[in-house]
Amino acid sequence: MNETITTIVGNVVDAPTKRTLESGVSVTSFRVASTARRFDRVTNRWTDGDSLFLKVTCWRALSENTSACVVKGDPVIVTGRLFSRTYEVVDGKRASYEIEATAIGFDLNRGRGDFKRVSATRA
Amino acid sequence: MNETITTIVGNVVDAPTKRTLESGVSVTSFRVASTARRFDRVTNRWTDGDSLFLKVTCWRALSENTSACVVKGDPVIVTGRLFSRTYEVVDGKRASYEIEATAIGFDLNRGRGDFKRVSATRA
Amino acid sequence: MNETITTIVGNVVDAPTKRTLESGVSVTSFRVASTARRFDRVTNRWTDGDSLFLKVTCWRALSENTSACVVKGDPVIVTGRLFSRTYEVVDGKRASYEIEATAIGFDLNRGRGDFKRVSATRA
Amino acid sequence: MNETITTIVGNVVDAPTKRTLESGVSVTSFRVASTARRFDRVTNRWTDGDSLFLKVTCWRALSENTSACVVKGDPVIVTGRLFSRTYEVVDGKRASYEIEATAIGFDLNRGRGDFKRVSATRA
Repeated sequence: MNETITTIVGNVVDAPTKRTLESGVSVTSFRVASTARRFDRVTNRWTDGDSLFLKVTCWRALSENTSACVVKGDPVIVTGRLFSRTYEVVDGKRASYEIEATAIGFDLNRGRGDFKRVSATRA
Repeated sequence: MNETITTIVGNVVDAPTKRTLESGVSVTSFRVASTARRFDRVTNRWTDGDSLFLKVTCWRALSENTSACVVKGDPVIVTGRLFSRTYEVVDGKRASYEIEATAIGFDLNRGRGDFKRVSATRA
Repeated sequence: MNETITTIVGNVVDAPTKRTLESGVSVTSFRVASTARRFDRVTNRWTDGDSLFLKVTCWRALSENTSACVVKGDPVIVTGRLFSRTYEVVDGKRASYEIEATAIGFDLNRGRGDFKRVSATRA
Repeated sequence: MNETITTIVGNVVDAPTKRTLESGVSVTSFRVASTARRFDRVTNRWTDGDSLFLKVTCWRALSENTSACVVKGDPVIVTGRLFSRTYEVVDGKRASYEIEATAIGFDLNRGRGDFKRVSATRA
């Protein structure tokens, strides 16, 4: 309840990294960059607008499948809940931002693919 | 401005249909069904919650790529702008609802795939 | 899980109606209309784009407070989960669409107000 | 195009600050904190989940009206586009995150209010 659900469409900017927790649960993380496009009325052209860089984390089957087929540079759609973590540093406080993904997919604006279902894994 | 942006995660329930307009622009449409899952505190189990059925339309490269690789039954993520059309019928008014997708992808919770970039087409 | 969270910014188009269920739970519903604004590159002006009409339902304290102060014509922001209900009619099937709101507010683009907290009610 | 639209429901954690640019345009900013609530199946209770702190910026009429009636502690709904700014520091790079609000309202889950329309200002 009260979660902040966000969808980001952009590119994977580093290699997804998978870890397996002691409990056997799989977790994968990577970073996504998205750049908005705006129509500039003065030049009559589309230009780059603001950017958004976010860490993405995913769990279990989504972690297994993402780490098996998503690589640096891929265009993706990521949806999930956005949260921040505040931590103390010598000179004050800082926050890091993250999406815990509930779904991830290759962006079909930019290419095509084959898709094969995988039975749900226990992890 | 003031658009209603929505992301739906669900299954394609009919075969995507591609048309080419006289202008040469490609447009594909299909329907998606999503069913929420809720934790039932009485039975201590996850059960099906409400459903959502929506028509999805996509244009140009997204239309070309989606019609080339998405089939009935595929699990997908769709993000785009939600709108409705009101029309008159004999006994009153009715509305149809639709998402014009800005991005579509296979849902990696449910499987894996290869992805190959396609150069942007003129359509 | 897997809910479709949507935020609509628009105007209340009918008087919110409150009912109290036998259980004592309060539920209020009304309709919202939102019209997108698009920049037309040919005329160099903003024009109306597609519209979206949606039924909104809210429960408990949100129902009590909304029915107490929101009236037809008010500009509002509504966020919640979108779902559809399919029903049979003589000549086939039809669907109705609805947002179950998790939060509602007056849109401060369009005006100002006083706000006073109300203690949570049992309903 | 390709903007990341986000809606956050939470509390204003500092006093909104209004500035007027040389161009005469009004801009207001403040911070919002949102804490998710999760149902804990072990204890059978709702508990606090992850938090999200975000800077919110708004412009023109929304800036004027927000700065005139929103104060520290108010429960609000904010919708807008999320972006980040990357900047260099002595020991590397850092990012700040922000929502440019397209609409802001008091959250009617938590109270009631009067609302009066204000004619659009030139700023």
